[in-house]
Amino acid sequence: MKNIILIGSGNVSTHLGLSLVQQGYNIKQVWSKHLINADILAKKLNSTSTDNLNNIKYADLYIVSVKDDVLKSLIKELKVNNIVHTSGSIGLEVFENKVENYGVFYPLQTFNKTLSLELSQTPICIESNNEAFKDKLISLGDSLTEKVITINSEQRKQLHIAAVFACNFVNHMLAISEKILKKSNTEFKLLIPIINETIKKINTNKPSKVQTGPAQRKDITVIQDHINNLSDKQTKKIYQIISESIIKYNEK
Amino acid sequence: MKNIILIGSGNVSTHLGLSLVQQGYNIKQVWSKHLINADILAKKLNSTSTDNLNNIKYADLYIVSVKDDVLKSLIKELKVNNIVHTSGSIGLEVFENKVENYGVFYPLQTFNKTLSLELSQTPICIESNNEAFKDKLISLGDSLTEKVITINSEQRKQLHIAAVFACNFVNHMLAISEKILKKSNTEFKLLIPIINETIKKINTNKPSKVQTGPAQRKDITVIQDHINNLSDKQTKKIYQIISESIIKYNEK
Repeated sequence: MKNIILIGSGNVSTHLGLSLVQQGYNIKQVWSKHLINADILAKKLNSTSTDNLNNIKYADLYIVSVKDDVLKSLIKELKVNNIVHTSGSIGLEVFENKVENYGVFYPLQTFNKTLSLELSQTPICIESNNEAFKDKLISLGDSLTEKVITINSEQRKQLHIAAVFACNFVNHMLAISEKILKKSNTEFKLLIPIINETIKKINTNKPSKVQTGPAQRKDITVIQDHINNLSDKQTKKIYQIISESIIKYNEK
Repeated sequence: MKNIILIGSGNVSTHLGLSLVQQGYNIKQVWSKHLINADILAKKLNSTSTDNLNNIKYADLYIVSVKDDVLKSLIKELKVNNIVHTSGSIGLEVFENKVENYGVFYPLQTFNKTLSLELSQTPICIESNNEAFKDKLISLGDSLTEKVITINSEQRKQLHIAAVFACNFVNHMLAISEKILKKSNTEFKLLIPIINETIKKINTNKPSKVQTGPAQRKDITVIQDHINNLSDKQTKKIYQIISESIIKYNEK
């Protein structure tokens, strides 16, 4: 699988493409709905670009990284063999009865186009409709990361949901704290040490074992005082429901 | 302020005590409601212990680190000068008209007794009723950390609320992901790289600038699918309300 074509030019395509090129793979072509985006990525990867699905070349592997809501229709149009998608949410059945070899190549990571990233510690989750193609995908994964795993579509979906909590929702908690501090003219960077310590702990402990804070202590006075001191309704509601959830978690 | 007495033997007292001894301060006595707890900490600090507030010795500084809901009554009983508390939530007024020199010495950190911690990067937030005592507290703080700041009670309260989101609620998001993975027989440690990357980003970017995920993309299909695939009611509700909050955050 030396020659690879990327379908999509977003965050995932960009990081996979860069890592693949670094490992000696050839990105033969980049497709995007918007030619300008395909161009930008193709340039980075010393590749060619197109916005026309009928002009897709022959390659050993096609990696489709597009938004979930367009993935299905795009796969319908794209009549190529040896194809994978990179979505956490979408099952293997999206390819069924279409081609001979298909699978999933899901990197469990948060990607921003503009931020560099080392893939070597990122789990890549693999699934395929047949053993021979699966072995090829595993070997591709092994060249990018130390952590290739094979899981089925249901496990991958649960892993994706867990990652939404562990990444996207964690980041939103931090965005809320950023907003609170902005209102009281206090710098967000004051929180960096406590955030880093929070995460350092869970690198060696289960999160459920190291919970701290007013809700963990069932300190209802502080919880109520904090809710009273928050200025907007939605943030109050979030404070309340997460505190309740922490208290319930301990009772189970 | 060479001789210090710790009122309380919990997570904050333990870490402050250990750091103070390391910097050459003398912990003259440790008080706790439960003598056994005072004993355990006193042994670590080469100090003495008591559970009787009437037996408190003379010292240059008294650091009170007890639960918020007992702080008020404890300060009422404890008739000593040169006293600080370490609470994020409680204002300076808790000491008013009681003694000459009083203040707050609030380390913005998450402490677990059993986990070691380097205080040198932890912000210590200082407030006092007079300049001379404040200067003494600043100099004490300077010996423990590079990040001593002076803020008022209202700013400290907002900082504490922000820290609940950035630390306690972040940890709970991780605890939820731990639970989701447990149910599908998938190891929590698979999430460690994406969690570390999430936090690495906010060491150099504002959280509001690096939000990713289904809610950020307004991908309602994935959001609904995730909610349908969560097994308990409370977690569904949390998924929904945080997703709504991410979507609204972007609209403002």
